[in-house]
Amino acid sequence: MAEYNFSIANTLTTLILERKYSTVRDILVTMNPSDIAYIFAELEEDRLPVFFRLLPKELAADTFVEMEADAQELLIRGFSDTELREILSEMYVDDAVDVIEEMPANVVRRILEQADPQMRKEINEILRYPENSAGSIMTTEYVSLRPAMTVEEAILRIRRTGVDKETIYTCYVTKNRTLLGLVTVKDLLLAEDDEMTIADLMETNIISVNTHTDQEEVAQMFSKYNFLAFPVVDAEYRMVGIVTFDDAMDVMEDEATEDIELMGGMLPSEKPYLRSTVFELFKNRILWLLLLMVSATFTGMIITSFESALAAQVVLTTFIPMLMGTGGNSGSQSSVTVIRSLSLGELEFSDIWSVVWKEVRTAVLCGVALSIACFGKLMLIDRMLLGNPEVTVMVALVVCITMALTVLSAKIVGAILPMFAKKLGLDPAVMASPFITTIVDALSLLVYFGVANALLL
Amino acid sequence: MAEYNFSIANTLTTLILERKYSTVRDILVTMNPSDIAYIFAELEEDRLPVFFRLLPKELAADTFVEMEADAQELLIRGFSDTELREILSEMYVDDAVDVIEEMPANVVRRILEQADPQMRKEINEILRYPENSAGSIMTTEYVSLRPAMTVEEAILRIRRTGVDKETIYTCYVTKNRTLLGLVTVKDLLLAEDDEMTIADLMETNIISVNTHTDQEEVAQMFSKYNFLAFPVVDAEYRMVGIVTFDDAMDVMEDEATEDIELMGGMLPSEKPYLRSTVFELFKNRILWLLLLMVSATFTGMIITSFESALAAQVVLTTFIPMLMGTGGNSGSQSSVTVIRSLSLGELEFSDIWSVVWKEVRTAVLCGVALSIACFGKLMLIDRMLLGNPEVTVMVALVVCITMALTVLSAKIVGAILPMFAKKLGLDPAVMASPFITTIVDALSLLVYFGVANALLL
Repeated sequence: MAEYNFSIANTLTTLILERKYSTVRDILVTMNPSDIAYIFAELEEDRLPVFFRLLPKELAADTFVEMEADAQELLIRGFSDTELREILSEMYVDDAVDVIEEMPANVVRRILEQADPQMRKEINEILRYPENSAGSIMTTEYVSLRPAMTVEEAILRIRRTGVDKETIYTCYVTKNRTLLGLVTVKDLLLAEDDEMTIADLMETNIISVNTHTDQEEVAQMFSKYNFLAFPVVDAEYRMVGIVTFDDAMDVMEDEATEDIELMGGMLPSEKPYLRSTVFELFKNRILWLLLLMVSATFTGMIITSFESALAAQVVLTTFIPMLMGTGGNSGSQSSVTVIRSLSLGELEFSDIWSVVWKEVRTAVLCGVALSIACFGKLMLIDRMLLGNPEVTVMVALVVCITMALTVLSAKIVGAILPMFAKKLGLDPAVMASPFITTIVDALSLLVYFGVANALLL
Repeated sequence: MAEYNFSIANTLTTLILERKYSTVRDILVTMNPSDIAYIFAELEEDRLPVFFRLLPKELAADTFVEMEADAQELLIRGFSDTELREILSEMYVDDAVDVIEEMPANVVRRILEQADPQMRKEINEILRYPENSAGSIMTTEYVSLRPAMTVEEAILRIRRTGVDKETIYTCYVTKNRTLLGLVTVKDLLLAEDDEMTIADLMETNIISVNTHTDQEEVAQMFSKYNFLAFPVVDAEYRMVGIVTFDDAMDVMEDEATEDIELMGGMLPSEKPYLRSTVFELFKNRILWLLLLMVSATFTGMIITSFESALAAQVVLTTFIPMLMGTGGNSGSQSSVTVIRSLSLGELEFSDIWSVVWKEVRTAVLCGVALSIACFGKLMLIDRMLLGNPEVTVMVALVVCITMALTVLSAKIVGAILPMFAKKLGLDPAVMASPFITTIVDALSLLVYFGVANALLL
């Protein structure tokens, strides 16, 4: 698909240059807002307003929401007050909030000035909630019903008010703003008797989230319960909004990306890779690299303090990369598994002992298998095939014992650190591979020289 | 929530032992299927059938779908044919297929025998599609409408047939099984005139997926377009089923987990961490560990061949971990970024030159910054603070030049390998950190000794 969009952008530019505006409009209206936003991103910046003004109002608003923040800002700065007001009136409140969160202060002020008073109030309410909370991603536009309504009255109400609601398929039953239950449009349509009341029909075992619930937890609830939307309630169980599945999908994707970036030793990025500037990439990457380089001083110090031993048995140096590599890999396997399970809500801090016990047994299996394989490799490849006489049985034994102990300590450290990070309220993903590798590197060297000292020297 | 479920499981067991079956039933029917499945997983295995039989038919089926494969198998083996038939008749086809895919052959045969002929036909059809394709995750239970129907007729049809459909909110307009358009229940309810025909109302710019479309691509389309469902068509554009957002969420989560596991140097797991046995964990982890240990032979060989140089300048050994560590981290930063972008569909193989160019520039910035910091660290910490006279300016220069060159090559290798993996039809995530670290380790050593040879010896 990506390939075909590129040529569409060129075609559209040619048509605009030939002033065939109605043709461009005819093409654009057949398309989906996401695709239009994608194509707009390929255009030269100064042509964007011309294209955008060709879109019908509703499509314009839907496309606007899908665009990148810098393009949105460019457009807003070019909008007249009337244009801005029109676009805002077509947008859902939560989408407007998403836009606002990316804009500089003077643009935010203009947006709030042009939003109608009701919307402005709702925007301000959502902006009050902490970042990454359910309150900050919810929308206030849901269908609410009264318990005494009949099915027929409820359907009438949906027909009358539904056009501005983000979803009409789940309706919430409230009394004095307190959440009593929910009914789906499916329930209403399939109800056998139009005179039944909502109170008869509604589901009262409601699963709701609090305004302060973390967005990652909300996303987990979507994947667990497969609902279209969750009601968001405040501390007094008054209904204040809904979070819909599409927001949850974005959260799931963003949180997974963030975890992956942290695991890869980077600060989380704000933009897709191809849109990030080189300097932004540099900024996100250099911090960890510097930190880890400096912390490698410890491994250097350990080697220095065993320099005389190494000079006597230079063959030991040969196996440092293998030992550190195996330790690093073992540790990152455990940490990555634990971090992902924490993210998916499959693990709690209270599981720490069962995690450690599982990792210890896995480490013993892995350590024994690796040591045997390593001993074989050292004897067959290094000693016989490569003819290195320095690789004696004793040296091989030192390497293999170190290997087993390194795997064991790496797996324990790798599993425990993310759990403590979680306990301390940090993102467990910061405790991933690069960090653990550094610790394990130091550990494996200490074990190595310790074992070597005991057996060889 | 996890904490409170544990005590519920105990309470329920106590009640069962006291034969208070109706109390247990009363408690369970207030709960959501996912929560019941969660609690059931905490029970002793042999009590499971007793509990399960207390559930009303529909709730039983919904709970069954949410359970782990081994519990499902246990239950099926205990079911009478009538029980099995009843559960199946309450299940959606795609859920039945999910269950079947986890069962041994003799259980599968029994399920197919007990399914009604229509369902059996549909199950077999879905089972024919390749694993991870849209066809394999779709359901055949959607609402189809004819273009000539009026809004009123359409609503009547939904009311009559909707109860068995996975979603009624998006309805598909077909003629001779060819997909013509779609209407949502929102469109139908908000239509101004009940006598309008579906043909007037329907959206004809439909975004559909093919039966063979990869499930990861389908999941990406959900997060791009925010639809509730996508129609699945065959090669002749005949409608064969729908994929709904809840399936897409599961796919998104599974694919992210799979990527993360591969990036961590493991084979993808089948089960959640706490449910995996130690032997399963061992099996998923040992392969990569062995492979990477053996491939570390190369780094060992490189060191061996420079043994005499190292014996003369043992101080060089001190910096091997830092250089290899920085190289490995730089490479994994790039590979992780590229792998994630490929997974999200933000990158194509054709972008390879812009990726390389971006990485080269980022690498130069990182390399220069690191080298300067490293030079400072070597002079201030190693030479002055730790008083190591062997760390001369020349040695520091060798280390810093190696650092910059290693970062450059690591970032290029890290970015390119996943893209070639994708091109070759492999999962790019196999080219992640552990693999790239091994290559970069070898590269950095070669550069190190090369530079040292030129400047020092």
